[in-house]
Parts: sequence; C-alpha cells; structure tokens
Amino acid sequence: MSGTTPAFLAACRREKPAHRPVWIMRQAGRYLPEYRALRAKVDFAALTHTADLAAEVTLQPIRRYPLDAAILFSDIMTPLQGMGIDLKFEPGPVVASPIRTRAQIEALPALVPERDVPFVLETIRQVRSGLPSGVPLIGFAGAPFTLLCYLVCGRPSKEFAAARGFLYAQPEDAERLLTVLADAMVEYLAAQAAAGAQALMLFESWAGLLAPPQFRRFALAAVRRAAAALRPTGVPLIYYVNQGSALMEEVAGLDVDVVGVDWRTPLSQVRRTLGPGKAVQGNLDPAALFGTPAELARQADAVLEAAGSAPGHIFNLGHGIWPDTDPDAVARLIDHVHERG
Amino acid sequence: MSGTTPAFLAACRREKPAHRPVWIMRQAGRYLPEYRALRAKVDFAALTHTADLAAEVTLQPIRRYPLDAAILFSDIMTPLQGMGIDLKFEPGPVVASPIRTRAQIEALPALVPERDVPFVLETIRQVRSGLPSGVPLIGFAGAPFTLLCYLVCGRPSKEFAAARGFLYAQPEDAERLLTVLADAMVEYLAAQAAAGAQALMLFESWAGLLAPPQFRRFALAAVRRAAAALRPTGVPLIYYVNQGSALMEEVAGLDVDVVGVDWRTPLSQVRRTLGPGKAVQGNLDPAALFGTPAELARQADAVLEAAGSAPGHIFNLGHGIWPDTDPDAVARLIDHVHERG
Repeated sequence: MSGTTPAFLAACRREKPAHRPVWIMRQAGRYLPEYRALRAKVDFAALTHTADLAAEVTLQPIRRYPLDAAILFSDIMTPLQGMGIDLKFEPGPVVASPIRTRAQIEALPALVPERDVPFVLETIRQVRSGLPSGVPLIGFAGAPFTLLCYLVCGRPSKEFAAARGFLYAQPEDAERLLTVLADAMVEYLAAQAAAGAQALMLFESWAGLLAPPQFRRFALAAVRRAAAALRPTGVPLIYYVNQGSALMEEVAGLDVDVVGVDWRTPLSQVRRTLGPGKAVQGNLDPAALFGTPAELARQADAVLEAAGSAPGHIFNLGHGIWPDTDPDAVARLIDHVHERG
Repeated sequence: MSGTTPAFLAACRREKPAHRPVWIMRQAGRYLPEYRALRAKVDFAALTHTADLAAEVTLQPIRRYPLDAAILFSDIMTPLQGMGIDLKFEPGPVVASPIRTRAQIEALPALVPERDVPFVLETIRQVRSGLPSGVPLIGFAGAPFTLLCYLVCGRPSKEFAAARGFLYAQPEDAERLLTVLADAMVEYLAAQAAAGAQALMLFESWAGLLAPPQFRRFALAAVRRAAAALRPTGVPLIYYVNQGSALMEEVAGLDVDVVGVDWRTPLSQVRRTLGPGKAVQGNLDPAALFGTPAELARQADAVLEAAGSAPGHIFNLGHGIWPDTDPDAVARLIDHVHERG
C-alpha cells in the first residue's frame, strides 16, 4: 500500500493510490495570469534557458492548485538547440537548416546534457527543492519521430508533408536520424532523472500522422530503443501518443509504465487493448473546460467511469490546456477528480 | 453483373465491377501543370465561380489519366458564400464575421441553389457533356460539422478550439447551426444530382477533432439528417471521415453507400467494423507517392490486400493529393491499381 507513496507515482506503478492523481498537460503556461505576467517581461526562449525562471514557471500551477505532479517547464526542441541546431520560436519552432541528407544526420553531435543544457538540470534541482514531497516532478523529452517532423520540415505544418514524404523516399536515412535522436533523448532524460526527475515522459505529438505500419517501423522502434536504455534509471516511463486511436495495439507491446492518450479514444477501450500491465493517463477533451460547471463535472465523470476502478489511472487532459481556459474551471476540475476519483 | 455499369458506380453499390475503380481526392489541383497554368491567370475564387473554368479544371485529370470518376471542382465553402456569408480564401477560408450567436444562426437564409450558386449547376452540366460515359461525376459538399468549424472559428486552425469549445458551451446552438447547415447542404446536393451528378459525397474533414460521444451527438446526427433527405435522389452517397479511426463503430449505423477513410486505419479493420452493407473508399497515404516506384507499388498492394476481394472497394488516397506530387507517380499508381486490383 502507498500511504507514503505520492498518488501519482503509485498510479504509475499500478498500485492503489490514496486518491486519483491528476495533473494537466501544459499546466505551466499561458492560461495562468502569473505566467503571462512573467512572459510579458521575458521571451519564451529565455524562459526555457534560465533555470530560476523555468523553475518559477514550473512551480506556479503547484502553488495555485492541489496538483499531484509537476512537470518541467521546457520545450521539446531545447535539447536540439543544445546539440547546435539553429532554431527560433515564431512561436512554433523554425529550424534554420532542415535536416534531410545523410551527411547532415551524421554531422549531428551527441548530446552531453551537463555541457549542452546545464540550465535544464539546474531547473530540475531547483524545482525539487521547492516542491512538497507529495508532488513528484516529471521530466520530459520529445519522442524521436516527433522531433524528426520538426527537423525535416523545418517548421510546424498541418500535414508535415516533407517529413512523411521523407519516410517513404529515404527510409534508411529516417531510421538513422531516429536512432541518433533516440540516443540523444536517452542521454537527456537519464540526466534529468539523475538531477531529480521522478518520472520521465516522451511526447509523441505527431503519432497521428502515421498509419500503423509506418508507426511501427519508425516512431515505435525509436521509442523502444529509448525505453530500453532508460529502464536502468528506475523511474516510471510515460509515452504520450497523440491521435493514437489506431495505434494502441502497436503500443501495447512497448515496455513503458504509462501510456498517455488523447481524448478521441475512450479509456475503457484503451485499457482493454493495452492490458493490465500498463497504467493510462488522460483523457478529458481540453474543450470540456469551456462547458458549464455541471457539464464539466459530467465530462470528468465520464472519463473516470471509462478509466474504471482498477489501479493505474492518472487523470489528465487528452491534450495541452488551451491558453484561453478559465483558471477557475481548472480548480473545479481538480477538486472534482479528487472528490470522485 | 455490370459490363455496362461504370466500375465506380458498381463498386458504390457493392456489385462486382469490371475492374477496381480508382480516383484521387483533389485530382483536379495544384500538382497538375495544366492546373497551375490556369491558376496563374485566374484566382481561386474566380475558378470556383466560373462554370467554364471550373468545368475545364474538373476535366483536366480525366484527360491525363484513365480515372474511374471525376469530381466537381469547387470548394466546400462555395454554397456558404451563396448564402451570403462573407469569406475570403487566404488561401484557407476566412469568414469575416464568425457565427457564434443564436441570432446569427437564425439569420442565415435558406440556400436556393438555382439562384445562389447557378454556376455550380452549370459546371456540372458542362462536365457531364464532356465526360466519357464510363466516367461518372461526383458532386460534393462539406459535412455540416466541418462547415461549422470554419464558421465558428472564422479561419482554419490546428485545433479549431473555438468550434470545439462552442459544442460544450452552447450545445443547443451548435445543434441548431448543424441543422441549418444540413438542410442547406441537402438543397445543394439534391440540385447537383438534378443537374447531373451521379454520386454525392460529404466531406467530414474535421471528424478527427471529436471523441465518439461528441461525434455522435453533433457531426453524425447532422449527416444522418442529410443522408435521409438525399435518399430520394437515388444516387450513391459517400461520407468521407478524416481521422476517423475511433469513429467507425458510430459510422456503421449511418445509411450511406460508401464510407471514405483516411490512411490511418487499415481497410481490413474498417470493413470488419462497417460490415458487408457498405462500400469503402481509400486509403493510400498521400506520402506514399514520394517513394520509389517499387515502394509505391508495394504500398498500393497493401491497400488492395487490406481491402480484400469482396466487392465494394474504390481505390483512392486517404487524404487529398499533395501539391508537390509528381504527376508521373500518379500515372503509375492508377495503372498499377487497374492491373492488380
């Protein structure tokens, strides 16, 4: 039993938690007035590169709400900047020289976190010293295929056509790039765990671009490589798969502790497909926070009901919270989950 | 048997066609040099509002390739312009006054196609007189929820947050707007059939924004209303559901002849879920056209194999063809499907 284990970590391990843990993707961000006040003075890149500020932003939602986990405030592109890739946020990441040749891939240096992104590790140390003991800190990175989408296309796009074409036109180059990125993210996440992160999450934001065979060959193979290398850290591994309704059978075989899912697939179905060996995280539609209090409660209850009573559910949204969300609706949601979950 | 029935129409009706029919979403469009030559002289809005030009563009791919169907060249927003909604293409549709109140919804006039969009009906008549008898013409409209996304948000966006929030915050207003749009699209499509369209297709481009309960209540209810009203036209009805992997069980109960699906769900699984009462259309990844000829053939074969040998498969891409696709790859694909299918 887990009277002393934080509810979030108990749920990651499919132990019975004291209450249903809840945190919110992008909980440190633009919907919070205190975040906007800071951003009015400092640009996004500076926030992510300055440990004091990133730690402050990470802690803002924890001070405001009884959340069950904190998540490092950073960007999935930050370690790539550390590897020397020239990019800007406009506000999405724009890569000066998109990576499309074998020579560019082979020229990518290995990531040495203590040298290349020391401010991220310092952020983690500062956050840990500021967090209550019942609130674990999640470290994170972009999953390799999602990073590939940005690196190959050069900028965000609706279809990421250049990246998807790259998989068909240069499949071996794609595999090589994914291997390089997987190894870099392993170094990055292992360093985060060493600095104090108590769980590690990989964000596959663009999983939904891929049919199952392509997902298996490219995205999942790279995550499998990363997950195997991260097991010795001993901390729970979380894989968030956005738009993954058609991919859960593929994900079921992956050795991670928790699968995060978007709002499109009912959790009952996800849990059936993944089996009892995995916890799930999600999956309220971020749009539900725009309903009346009664409607929001009804939608949260539907998620709790679909998740079922077996241990291993971490309540979350199915995608990042929207910038124009009412902070009071978030407070109501968290209280409701704690009361009912 | 159907020696005289065009292969496309036979497949819509789940009869055995003489060969596997194939057409390509956005087959009249920017990947064709002859289309780009015309667009260099005429803007997009003028193309869609001038019958001679729209007919010419509709016929361009038919002259170049042995396609099994033509599809009207138009835009899903064209009938809304006919209803007096002020919008521009930049290049995505931008609505001058987004529709978010009950008063705005009730002020929308009914669509009278012969008065409001006569050029579309004239395009259909011209195309029919220019098409070989074995190549049927597909008319189309946007599905009501997809139109709602543009009308409520005012412009395309990655998440269509305002539209999704609207469903939760003003569900009754959303239902009313969907009813108005469904009825307008019924008038529009029935007029297209009367003018000569031999099949009617509804595009649900943004189905993938919705979890099953929201899809059922909003998007599907409106399509059900439209499909019931269109049955008396006697032509096959096609419902294209983009990113619908989690929605096929909902779609199975809909009274349409053909369900079009994106590339993310294997057709074998779609056919199992939809049952023998529906034909399917799709679903090659548009990115596969960027592979080598051997890889493209392999990917096309995978679609044919997943579709199986039972009648009722129309080969297509799973989404619109990309503007930078090589027209020769399209020729190879069509020939391959005709040889193997």
